[in-house]
Amino acid sequence: MYGAGDVRVEEVPDPQIVEPTDAVVRVTLACVCGSDLHPYRSTPASATGTPMGHEFLGVVEQVGSAVTNLKPGDFVVSPFAVSDNTCPFCREGFHTSCQHGGWYGAGGIGGAQAEKVRVPQADGTLVALPGDVDEALLPSLLTLSDVYLTGYHAAHMGRVEPGKTVTVIGDGAVGLSAVLASKQLGAEQIILMGRHTDRTDLGVTFGATHVVPECGEAGVAKVLELTGGEGSHVVLEAVGHMPAYEQAFRVVRPGGVISRVGVPQYEDAPVGFGSLFGKNATLNGGPAPVRAYIEDAIPQVLSGQIAPGRVFDAEVTLDDIAEAYRLMDSRRALKVLVRP
Amino acid sequence: MYGAGDVRVEEVPDPQIVEPTDAVVRVTLACVCGSDLHPYRSTPASATGTPMGHEFLGVVEQVGSAVTNLKPGDFVVSPFAVSDNTCPFCREGFHTSCQHGGWYGAGGIGGAQAEKVRVPQADGTLVALPGDVDEALLPSLLTLSDVYLTGYHAAHMGRVEPGKTVTVIGDGAVGLSAVLASKQLGAEQIILMGRHTDRTDLGVTFGATHVVPECGEAGVAKVLELTGGEGSHVVLEAVGHMPAYEQAFRVVRPGGVISRVGVPQYEDAPVGFGSLFGKNATLNGGPAPVRAYIEDAIPQVLSGQIAPGRVFDAEVTLDDIAEAYRLMDSRRALKVLVRP
Repeated sequence: MYGAGDVRVEEVPDPQIVEPTDAVVRVTLACVCGSDLHPYRSTPASATGTPMGHEFLGVVEQVGSAVTNLKPGDFVVSPFAVSDNTCPFCREGFHTSCQHGGWYGAGGIGGAQAEKVRVPQADGTLVALPGDVDEALLPSLLTLSDVYLTGYHAAHMGRVEPGKTVTVIGDGAVGLSAVLASKQLGAEQIILMGRHTDRTDLGVTFGATHVVPECGEAGVAKVLELTGGEGSHVVLEAVGHMPAYEQAFRVVRPGGVISRVGVPQYEDAPVGFGSLFGKNATLNGGPAPVRAYIEDAIPQVLSGQIAPGRVFDAEVTLDDIAEAYRLMDSRRALKVLVRP
Repeated sequence: MYGAGDVRVEEVPDPQIVEPTDAVVRVTLACVCGSDLHPYRSTPASATGTPMGHEFLGVVEQVGSAVTNLKPGDFVVSPFAVSDNTCPFCREGFHTSCQHGGWYGAGGIGGAQAEKVRVPQADGTLVALPGDVDEALLPSLLTLSDVYLTGYHAAHMGRVEPGKTVTVIGDGAVGLSAVLASKQLGAEQIILMGRHTDRTDLGVTFGATHVVPECGEAGVAKVLELTGGEGSHVVLEAVGHMPAYEQAFRVVRPGGVISRVGVPQYEDAPVGFGSLFGKNATLNGGPAPVRAYIEDAIPQVLSGQIAPGRVFDAEVTLDDIAEAYRLMDSRRALKVLVRP
């Protein structure tokens, strides 16, 4: 990406093993993330550009001398963040804070919207998949890189469980994933706040029991009405803008949890007596440590228990990736597969 | 209280049963709360005044016709907030958000710095104590009205458990109570941030393993050093001012919890990528639903397992209560007993 709206496909040298803990992976399926749209809309023009993409399935081509869990030919899924899976923070389940972690497209690591990518900390980062997976399941496996497990992280941090009422704010691919994860975790009532009917329809398929298209005061009133005036035990905020946060603390129940996975486009926000403190509301969430959840999710996808890949509604080849950005930026597509 | 610094003792008519769910209790032991100092320092002068006090032990004198759990002569402890103990929020453990709740000194309910007080929702609010309690245990039982169980609430919301590192910010009576509660919940390392040696000494008696007298950057650096550079699993914030909150998010570990029981003297605060979100930190806490914890704490006090009453370091009669406020306001006393 060379600047806002300026996505180019270029020939670059193949990635090589740099550290003995690296692997080089041939990408077989990638996609564009909602978070890729932030730089697509706002990056200043640059002469050097930034490699893009952080979600992929692929086949290991080469491994460094210190890699022991993987071998060339292994079919793998990668979390969107690199982690060693052994540091204290990884052991506590917060791989996105790994002491030896990193991010695709930054710090000398390439992007995954590419034919090949170098994966640092390969033993910790990559998770092997069965080699003979049904082609139809690949999009769902790809969602374990980020989008489904980001929704799952929201629900996990929100402590969704049977008997709980969950309100999901945002009908993007992460919000819909949060609906599906909440359903998996046994939520009784799942209220989806969103106003794009094609998306909220998929949300209903994923398990939403109610859709609230209203925003602002009207939306808050509707959620309170649906919860007997008491508010929602859990609010999963999958937008990241201040109005969504304000909606969240207005609909959360006393003692409830607001779990955020929409990257906040603000730093300061209300947290005092009138918003969170007075009703003992909990605020949490952050960049999803999807590595912590991948191994449990793989059999759920393989068995057909969940089909999170339904968030993909378009596909392009790598050469046409600029079109994928345009489709998502204009909301003509929810999430776009990229096939190198 | 007729205004800042203006505390008067007055003869008023005895409280009467108003609602059938009321009780009238003769107060046998009360105290002054750190939170009483806010109005003591800032209330505008008024002609009518406000009844003060919300922590007490006492003997039931009269009960309304709908009260079934209590009878005249029962020795009781009262939480600082009134609650029915049956509404949905009470059943979920958040009695300070009770749908039929209230606060002493407000809405026609008297204060507990008095000879007698009317207690609404008496069945839900009051908890009976054995009648033959050793006099020496009474101050500790009184802390179950508020201060000890407010510290306990902080630790409970912070999910303190064996193996966890806990940092307590603030060496007031609530902070010291949070230390004692963290010790009870099995915390491995308890770092107390405070600079009043007489108070932090009691904190060490209560279980603090380290005392950090430094504030600001130096204090943050010291806590990080004590936690191997990783930060604290749990931060219990018992102050309520912005510098304490800033300290909290700087020392909390990725995936850790900041639990606040100091009433925030701010509404907006940093919660974005650079403070909470980036490291998946959780923020929670609020007015302590002590009613949820009293029944478990009573046997701990009666058996001598905990002695939270050690936070009291002075005593006055009700007639001399203005002196109690002066002692606490000037920090000559940590917390003052009031004997009607």
